[in-house]
Amino acid sequence: MGYFRKNIESAAGYTPGYQPKEGADVVKLNTNENPYPPSPAVMEAVSRVGMEQLRRYPDPEGSAFRVAAAEVNGVRPENIMCCNGGDDLLTIVFRAFCDRKRAVAYPVPTYSLYPVLAKLQDCKVVEVPFDKEFNLPSKLARTDAALTIVCNPNAPSGSFISVGELGSLATEVGGVLLIDEAYVDFAEENCAGLVKEFDNVIVLRSMSKGYSLAGLRFGYAIAGTDLIAGLMKVKDSYNVDTVSIAAATAAIEGHGYFKENIEKVKAERKRLIEELRKLKFEVRDSFSNFVLAENSQAGNIYDKLVQRSIYVRCFELAGLRDKLRITVGTREQNDKLLSALKEILSE
Amino acid sequence: MGYFRKNIESAAGYTPGYQPKEGADVVKLNTNENPYPPSPAVMEAVSRVGMEQLRRYPDPEGSAFRVAAAEVNGVRPENIMCCNGGDDLLTIVFRAFCDRKRAVAYPVPTYSLYPVLAKLQDCKVVEVPFDKEFNLPSKLARTDAALTIVCNPNAPSGSFISVGELGSLATEVGGVLLIDEAYVDFAEENCAGLVKEFDNVIVLRSMSKGYSLAGLRFGYAIAGTDLIAGLMKVKDSYNVDTVSIAAATAAIEGHGYFKENIEKVKAERKRLIEELRKLKFEVRDSFSNFVLAENSQAGNIYDKLVQRSIYVRCFELAGLRDKLRITVGTREQNDKLLSALKEILSE
Repeated sequence: MGYFRKNIESAAGYTPGYQPKEGADVVKLNTNENPYPPSPAVMEAVSRVGMEQLRRYPDPEGSAFRVAAAEVNGVRPENIMCCNGGDDLLTIVFRAFCDRKRAVAYPVPTYSLYPVLAKLQDCKVVEVPFDKEFNLPSKLARTDAALTIVCNPNAPSGSFISVGELGSLATEVGGVLLIDEAYVDFAEENCAGLVKEFDNVIVLRSMSKGYSLAGLRFGYAIAGTDLIAGLMKVKDSYNVDTVSIAAATAAIEGHGYFKENIEKVKAERKRLIEELRKLKFEVRDSFSNFVLAENSQAGNIYDKLVQRSIYVRCFELAGLRDKLRITVGTREQNDKLLSALKEILSE
Repeated sequence: MGYFRKNIESAAGYTPGYQPKEGADVVKLNTNENPYPPSPAVMEAVSRVGMEQLRRYPDPEGSAFRVAAAEVNGVRPENIMCCNGGDDLLTIVFRAFCDRKRAVAYPVPTYSLYPVLAKLQDCKVVEVPFDKEFNLPSKLARTDAALTIVCNPNAPSGSFISVGELGSLATEVGGVLLIDEAYVDFAEENCAGLVKEFDNVIVLRSMSKGYSLAGLRFGYAIAGTDLIAGLMKVKDSYNVDTVSIAAATAAIEGHGYFKENIEKVKAERKRLIEELRKLKFEVRDSFSNFVLAENSQAGNIYDKLVQRSIYVRCFELAGLRDKLRITVGTREQNDKLLSALKEILSE
C-alpha cells in the first residue's frame, strides 16, 4: 500500500505564480495583487493586537468581521463565514459537496485551482467550455453537478456575467452554485443579493485584491444561514487568526480608502487596455484588476519580459497559449511594461 | 439530492472550549493556553511587518520558519511544512491518507477532533481503547490503518509514551504514523529524531501551547522529504500568512524565553498536582500543560466552578465523565481554583 491515496499520489498540485524576493527590483504583474498599499487603518489595527490576544485562541467565528462584512453586503452576520483566504473556502466547499458520485462543474478556462481541488477530493469533474466571448454556457445548467462554480469576474479572461443570468442559473442547477467573486471589487455589480433569494448560492469574497491584503490570507463566504451552518462544521474551528480578524475588519470598515483605491485601479486598467490595443494586442474589456492580452507571439514576448525582470502570467492551457494575463499595476509599472513591449515588438 | 454530502449532513462538528469575552473577570483553565505571554520578540516581529508585505502574497512555503524550525529540531528545512495551526495539518493528513477503504486508527480517549475529521473525510475509523494506565495498546500496531495517530503527550490524560515505543510502532504499522506532539514542549523528550529513521512518521507541532501563540494559528509538520512533498500538494498554497510566519519564526528562534516559560509551567504543574491530591482528587502525573483530575463528583464540581467564573473542561465521553481536565494556570489562577475546590468539597 502506498502511503498516500492514489488521487493524491497522482496529483500535480497547484503552482502559485512566481514570487520574487522582497526588495528585488522587478515589475511584478503576475499574481493580481493590488498595486496600492492596504489602508493605514489596517496597520493600526495590527499594531493594537496585544500579547494577551495572541496567547489566547481566536474567536472561532471571527464575529467582529462577520458584523462588518454583513453591514457592507446588506446581509446578517449569520450569512457570513470567515476563511483563511478564498482558497480555504474553495477547499471547504469541495469537501462539503463533492465526491466520486457528486460532481463539480465549471466553465473553462477559469481559475486553475478548481481542477486541482477536484483531484484532491477525488470527485467527478464536468468542464464546460466558454465560447469565444466568455458567455455563460447554457450547458452549465444541465450537468447535474452537486457543485457548480462560476468565477465572476472570470480569471483569466476578466469577463463578467450579469447578476440576472447567475440568478437564473441558481434556479436551474440542482445543487449548490458558488460564485467566486474574488475580483468583484473591480466590477460594477455583485451577487451578494442573490443569497437572500436562493438557498443554494454561496458567494466567495477575498480581501486579497480589492483590499490589498494578499499577505494576510482572509476571505469570506456569503450564503443562506443553512449553508453557512453546514460549512461551519467543515471548516477548521480556528481557521482565521486574531491578527487577521482585526486587520480584515479594519479594512472592510474603511470604505472611503477602499473606494478611492479601486477607482485608481480602474482608471489605470482603462489606460493599459487602450495602450495594449495600440500595440496590436487583442484585449478584451476587463471587469477585474488584470487584462488578458492576445498576441500570436505571446510565449516569446513572455520570455523577453522575464529577461527585463518584468513578470506577467501565461498559462499552458487550451485557448490561453497565445495570451498574457497582465495585472494592472501602478502608472509607473504599467509604463515600464508598455515601453518594454514596444521594444520587444519592434525587434 | 441534499446540498451537502450525507456524511457532512450528519456530522456534529467540533465544539471548541468556551471562550469568555476579552477582559471578562474569569479564571480560564479550559483550553490549555499557556498562562504566560508570548516572547516580546514576537510582538516586535509583528510590528515590523510592513504594508508592502501585506499587499503581496506570502511566501507559500514559509521558508524563514522552515529554516528556524529545522535548526531547533535537528532536521533540514525540507523536513518541515508550515500549517495554519496543528488542526490544519490534521485536516491535511486525513485528506491525504484516508478514505472509505483507508482507515484511521488511534487509541481512545484522546483529542476529540480526530473522530470529527474522520467523519468529514468519510473514512473508516478504528478506535483502540487505552488501558487504565494509558499504555500504548498493542492492538494499535495491527489495525491495517492507512493512518495511525498517537497524541503524545495524550490529551486529555497528560500521559506520555516513550520515543522508543513509538519507534517500534512505526516499524509495525503498514501506513503512516502521525505523532501529535501539540503538547510535547512540556514533556522531557520528543519524536523529531524518528523522522530520520522512518519514512512513514509525521510529527505534528503547535506554536499554540509551548510558545503561547494560540491566537496566531501556527503549527508545523516534521517528516521525511517524500511525505512533506506529498502533503505540500494537499495544503492550500498560501496556508500561512505573512504576519504569522514572521511571528512564529521570532518565537521559535527565542529559545531562552521559551525555556524559562516552560519551566515555570512545569513547576506550577507539580504544585497543582500535589495540592489536588491533598484534596482527594486522583491525579495522574502529567507531561503536558494540563492535568486530569478524577473525582466521583466531577460533574457537580464543574458546575459549581462555573458559578464562581472558573472554567475547566469536562468531556461527555466514556472513561472521562468522572474527570476534570484542568489547564495549568499562573500561580494566582491555580490558587483561585484550589480555594474554590476546597470550598466546594467542604460544602
